[in-house]
Amino acid sequence: MFFSLKFNRMETIGFIGTGNLGYPIAENILKAGYKLKVYNRTASKAKPLEALGAELVDSPQAAASKGGIVMSLVADDRAVEAINTDALLAALGEGGIHVSMSTISPDGARKMAEKCKAAGVHYVAAPVFARPDAAANKVGNAVISGDAGAKERIKPLLSAGFAKNIFDLGEDPGHANVLKLIGNFMIAASIELMSEAFTLAEKNGLEVKTVYEMLTSTLFASPIFRNYGGMILERQFAGNPSFDAALGLKDINLVLQTGRNTLTPLPMADLVHSRLTTVLAQGVKDADWLALATGAMKDAGLKI
Amino acid sequence: MFFSLKFNRMETIGFIGTGNLGYPIAENILKAGYKLKVYNRTASKAKPLEALGAELVDSPQAAASKGGIVMSLVADDRAVEAINTDALLAALGEGGIHVSMSTISPDGARKMAEKCKAAGVHYVAAPVFARPDAAANKVGNAVISGDAGAKERIKPLLSAGFAKNIFDLGEDPGHANVLKLIGNFMIAASIELMSEAFTLAEKNGLEVKTVYEMLTSTLFASPIFRNYGGMILERQFAGNPSFDAALGLKDINLVLQTGRNTLTPLPMADLVHSRLTTVLAQGVKDADWLALATGAMKDAGLKI
Repeated sequence: MFFSLKFNRMETIGFIGTGNLGYPIAENILKAGYKLKVYNRTASKAKPLEALGAELVDSPQAAASKGGIVMSLVADDRAVEAINTDALLAALGEGGIHVSMSTISPDGARKMAEKCKAAGVHYVAAPVFARPDAAANKVGNAVISGDAGAKERIKPLLSAGFAKNIFDLGEDPGHANVLKLIGNFMIAASIELMSEAFTLAEKNGLEVKTVYEMLTSTLFASPIFRNYGGMILERQFAGNPSFDAALGLKDINLVLQTGRNTLTPLPMADLVHSRLTTVLAQGVKDADWLALATGAMKDAGLKI
Repeated sequence: MFFSLKFNRMETIGFIGTGNLGYPIAENILKAGYKLKVYNRTASKAKPLEALGAELVDSPQAAASKGGIVMSLVADDRAVEAINTDALLAALGEGGIHVSMSTISPDGARKMAEKCKAAGVHYVAAPVFARPDAAANKVGNAVISGDAGAKERIKPLLSAGFAKNIFDLGEDPGHANVLKLIGNFMIAASIELMSEAFTLAEKNGLEVKTVYEMLTSTLFASPIFRNYGGMILERQFAGNPSFDAALGLKDINLVLQTGRNTLTPLPMADLVHSRLTTVLAQGVKDADWLALATGAMKDAGLKI
């Protein structure tokens, strides 16, 4: 029994995409005892993982092994398409799994899953709810959908990589992405909401920190309001983004696109879309998506 | 020492306004051992409190005693003005306190406080964060502002009546009301946000309950998202409102008015204002303000 566990742990996993979020996840998986073949478009970003035993490879398909698991975490639909190639699927082969952790469109996920299926490969959608520090500390949340057996097989990897909790959304590979988009929409809207609330407080002469403490210790005592509210107070809008404003805008675009495809009007999503567009249009350097909070402040004449 | 404590507990308090929220607070204060003189415009609503020892009186000023405390909880600025009369202030006299628990405009509170001051009476703003059931269970939150000594004197009454926590916003009698309005604005916006999110989930074929469970057990694990989200799932929009849609609209009007007075654009408040206006315009019978959640659902063609 112990031997078998040990053996599974030594399984070689392919890992594609060591950006802000992918890097700490790959690091955690290595530290958990898995072997890792890592591909990143910009190889230098993955380089430090070699010291932890990772093998760097020069193509996505070189990270795959027959019947094995490849995890990917990249920017958008197009980037996942560029990974999920015939070459990759041939290298994975029958019984292989592509764990797609990127935040992409539900329809894109379904298309990718169809392509995998034709090659005998399972596609599991497993987008990541975590900023890089939360992923590093394994207190993130995973939402997964896809083939039941494949999901069972990859759960230990998600736990090893970043996830405190794993929520199973069923078989439809698009569903995990819908929930991920809903979550990001709700975070963005909460940032806008706190920004308007704090601005109203400040313009009425209240101490904003007291308002923040009252609300986030009672009615709104949740991680999102507590953490993002604190970052708004600290004005952590740019400089060292842990989630790029451009990626945030990409996600809100996906939310609106998902709404359009299903005839769902989303006025709050329209509003945060406008805020994020403004951040990018104004050319704020190294903007975090939290910078959407500056919109309500600037509108009201506050100094940022 | 014990005798003195006992004596204070037996102090007679005036209580004005035994509506949905006022009634359980008056009941709690009576049960804590205080004597109560109760005035309500519609006397029949206060009648059951007699069985608990309350004395019903036929005017606001008849509830007051020299140097004593009168608590009031009524619908709006005009109703507080109708209570805070020369007759009431004369009956309270030097050292008396008017504890105003109603959700009113910050400027209205300041005006009321000025009038009190001229009569030697302290005005303490102490709006209530609690729906009736939370008040009954004394798990509500109080935010208070006004004279320091008066605030200390009335804190035990707020704890006895409804408050688990009391947050002190300083001396400006308007500030507690600003925070109360901000809180109600944030609740209303959160209802709209969850409604849009759940609608997007439903239209994409996800099980909404799973979405609700995932979000409110992790990122949005706060009382507001948990409780109101659950009520949205249960479609508790009308029939037995614990917070009337009309009162909710009144509060959002005050939020917008407070924004206008301080040049603070609040697009999310504009949106929930529009939603609540629609609920009232459509003549939903006995609508709770939670019914604002029906807007996004109906817009997307969902059956309520």
